[in-house]
Amino acid sequence: MRQRNVKNKKDIINNSSYVILKPNEYKGFWNKVFKNNNPIYLEIGMGKGDFITENAKRYPNINFIGIEKYDSIMALAIKKMPEGLSNLKLIRMDALNINDVFDKEISLIYLNFSDPWPKPRHEKRRLTSSHFLDLFNGIFNNKKEIVMKTDNRGLFEYSLISFVNNGYLIKDISLDLHNDNRENNIETEYERKFLLKNNVIYYVKVEKK
Amino acid sequence: MRQRNVKNKKDIINNSSYVILKPNEYKGFWNKVFKNNNPIYLEIGMGKGDFITENAKRYPNINFIGIEKYDSIMALAIKKMPEGLSNLKLIRMDALNINDVFDKEISLIYLNFSDPWPKPRHEKRRLTSSHFLDLFNGIFNNKKEIVMKTDNRGLFEYSLISFVNNGYLIKDISLDLHNDNRENNIETEYERKFLLKNNVIYYVKVEKK
Repeated sequence: MRQRNVKNKKDIINNSSYVILKPNEYKGFWNKVFKNNNPIYLEIGMGKGDFITENAKRYPNINFIGIEKYDSIMALAIKKMPEGLSNLKLIRMDALNINDVFDKEISLIYLNFSDPWPKPRHEKRRLTSSHFLDLFNGIFNNKKEIVMKTDNRGLFEYSLISFVNNGYLIKDISLDLHNDNRENNIETEYERKFLLKNNVIYYVKVEKK
Repeated sequence: MRQRNVKNKKDIINNSSYVILKPNEYKGFWNKVFKNNNPIYLEIGMGKGDFITENAKRYPNINFIGIEKYDSIMALAIKKMPEGLSNLKLIRMDALNINDVFDKEISLIYLNFSDPWPKPRHEKRRLTSSHFLDLFNGIFNNKKEIVMKTDNRGLFEYSLISFVNNGYLIKDISLDLHNDNRENNIETEYERKFLLKNNVIYYVKVEKK
């Protein structure tokens, strides 16, 4: 995502009740952060947060955690967020460190419009590479589900191959999500932008036992 | 495929040197029909035969067999075919009977623009259903490869799920084949027609060990 500098971004992050500033301290104990044992869904690369905020509103019996690499983007997300969602937490971190923060406690991972890293030499940086799928193995509990949306055809083709090579089955797929008129789809900021350009949006839900 | 009645279709089929009229007699011995031990590739639903004929010309060290359900369509294919391709044979048959004709001797199956059978109650008729994939298990030799092209999004989405559920890995995929400009793609009659309408052509190659 193109980054715009946000004034006082550090302050905005440090003062938000949604942000967990020392997430490593809760590794293996995120149920205590939420004070319940509801399933925890994680969005990696939450961007400006529309998707995870709407999910948190719509599904109060699921706990949502959004992680985001960049201070500026996270600050923008926080500024837009309503107050008082007790099932939503945010972490400013790099997904590479995910095993320092979670331990077998995530039920589902959302990957929305992730960076495609199209160059072959950057393959390991793609969030659906074997490298990342291996990291995810350590944070998933029994149920391992990944839900992905993207308008990037190359990334989607790559991801399908990678998911299956890593033992995932395809539970649901759409090669033109918005022509399917799925009622439950929650749009991201990117998605709205791409739809205006008439880009095809690809969607897949994969699961590993 | 919409069928046009072809005059003398039975004669055309019975008199073609390409057609094997009693294929059951060669079950397990198709290498004797071709008089060599080259790999055998099968196209199920060869239509008017452009794809398999061009393959036979281009790859003389592979044996090709095209099967087609309808007399009229097969007769049209035969009328277009050049003479003298020793690595090409045709069978007029229903794919449901495939295990009566082949026994562990096919290396690759092509499924080009297969009938999508969109109604759920017709699922078993789709050539990529578990029902057909089970039948294919009996005709494949050690190497099991299926190469599929279609412009039907629903069939393609269904097929990806079905392939993976049945133990296949995805070796190659394109969600817009003709934007990839793949040099080795051989077009079918349908494909040319759909391209003129700007339909997206989906392509996948799957493999099971």
